[in-house]
Amino acid sequence: MIKVVIIGSGNVAHHLIKICQETASIDLIQVVVRDKIAVEQLVPAAKIITDYQSIAVANVYILAVSDKAIAEVSEKLPFQNRLVVHTSGASEMTIINSKNRKGVFYPLQTFSKNKNVLFNEIPICIESQFPDDYTLLETLAQQISQKVLPISSSQRKSLHLAAVFVCNFVNHLYHIGHEICSENQVPFEILQPLIQETAAKIQKVSPSEAQTGPAIRNDTQTIDNHLDLLHNETNKELYKLITKSIQNVKKL
Amino acid sequence: MIKVVIIGSGNVAHHLIKICQETASIDLIQVVVRDKIAVEQLVPAAKIITDYQSIAVANVYILAVSDKAIAEVSEKLPFQNRLVVHTSGASEMTIINSKNRKGVFYPLQTFSKNKNVLFNEIPICIESQFPDDYTLLETLAQQISQKVLPISSSQRKSLHLAAVFVCNFVNHLYHIGHEICSENQVPFEILQPLIQETAAKIQKVSPSEAQTGPAIRNDTQTIDNHLDLLHNETNKELYKLITKSIQNVKKL
Repeated sequence: MIKVVIIGSGNVAHHLIKICQETASIDLIQVVVRDKIAVEQLVPAAKIITDYQSIAVANVYILAVSDKAIAEVSEKLPFQNRLVVHTSGASEMTIINSKNRKGVFYPLQTFSKNKNVLFNEIPICIESQFPDDYTLLETLAQQISQKVLPISSSQRKSLHLAAVFVCNFVNHLYHIGHEICSENQVPFEILQPLIQETAAKIQKVSPSEAQTGPAIRNDTQTIDNHLDLLHNETNKELYKLITKSIQNVKKL
Repeated sequence: MIKVVIIGSGNVAHHLIKICQETASIDLIQVVVRDKIAVEQLVPAAKIITDYQSIAVANVYILAVSDKAIAEVSEKLPFQNRLVVHTSGASEMTIINSKNRKGVFYPLQTFSKNKNVLFNEIPICIESQFPDDYTLLETLAQQISQKVLPISSSQRKSLHLAAVFVCNFVNHLYHIGHEICSENQVPFEILQPLIQETAAKIQKVSPSEAQTGPAIRNDTQTIDNHLDLLHNETNKELYKLITKSIQNVKKL
């Protein structure tokens, strides 16, 4: 059994704690948090610690903390030459303190505490300083997901940037759609089949082939009508800029 | 059986022709096109006509043409006092020529010829000038979809605007993600589970609850790193504007 300590209590920590506990071949021996309340619904009290001096010996220490905290938390660890990994898409592996062996264990998914996810489908991007550690991380990742792949720090940065566009920014466009529906007494639910099909479609055809709508048709009448309907200045700006960007692709 | 004539050969016409032919209780008696080649793979030759004078008597004439063409095509119809509907999200019902009874039959979905869709799940928004015509359109729509609803021209305009954000604009963000992956030799497929989960998530929680990422966390370090990684000026502008827009929501 692979012995794991998870440090952190945010969204990623929350889901990693759950999946590690649900997986028979993983032994989650401790969870390190600032405040026990954050994870007491998830983890038996005996496994929750707040004092770094009490951290037990494990095969891997997973720092599921904010990007800003990785360097500081890894420095505070009271041991050396053990495998310490972070879970961040945006941070270099090298920001982990050099007294320990470094690695990355990045599950590429959007995590909110109130929404369950199927780990089995989540790509886990791994990286390590040493080959043996890569093997261990790969074995660990394969216990919880079918999709495990080596991704370098520079590839991971690009992936994370792309993820911001296709997830965080996309979700914000859902929010704007939701807002427009609310303002006009139209139930947002009517848009759900369209939203699901838009996502499903690009599993079959490329996004550029999938593009439809007034921008790509250069339907200036509809575009002008839409701009008239928008009251929020930022939404108006966004509409214009995305329309321009769609039309730039067409020109290539 | 409801007798239907479809006028047009674009993406919407293509899918409506298919579903009408597949539905036993609908009799697609003619398809009217400018050029027979456009639909000869879809419809028996005897049903394809190019001459408006040959249009047969039907219960409903569906104008699945571009928004710009609705007024002109409806004027060219060589009959009067029959039910003529358009399929546009963005156009008023009233732009149909007044010599016939007007209606709207708007399937709220993204249609591309090379991608099949399940009509059963597609909301069909209907509207009519006269109550009896509403009943007929409702009966027709219920043959092909479980989700049929009355939507006024002004509600439909808002829905269409929201649809542009959650479908056309979202798809463009998929395109940018695809582009970033290609430029950095990372397979776009790795992002698919994230894309599907982002869409699935808002079936359970609202988009504002679902929001994650550097913008909502106000993680300026990651935001600056991302801006450095972006070479395309329009993408940089888009990144800044959507980030600002996400942060404006947070402030409310």
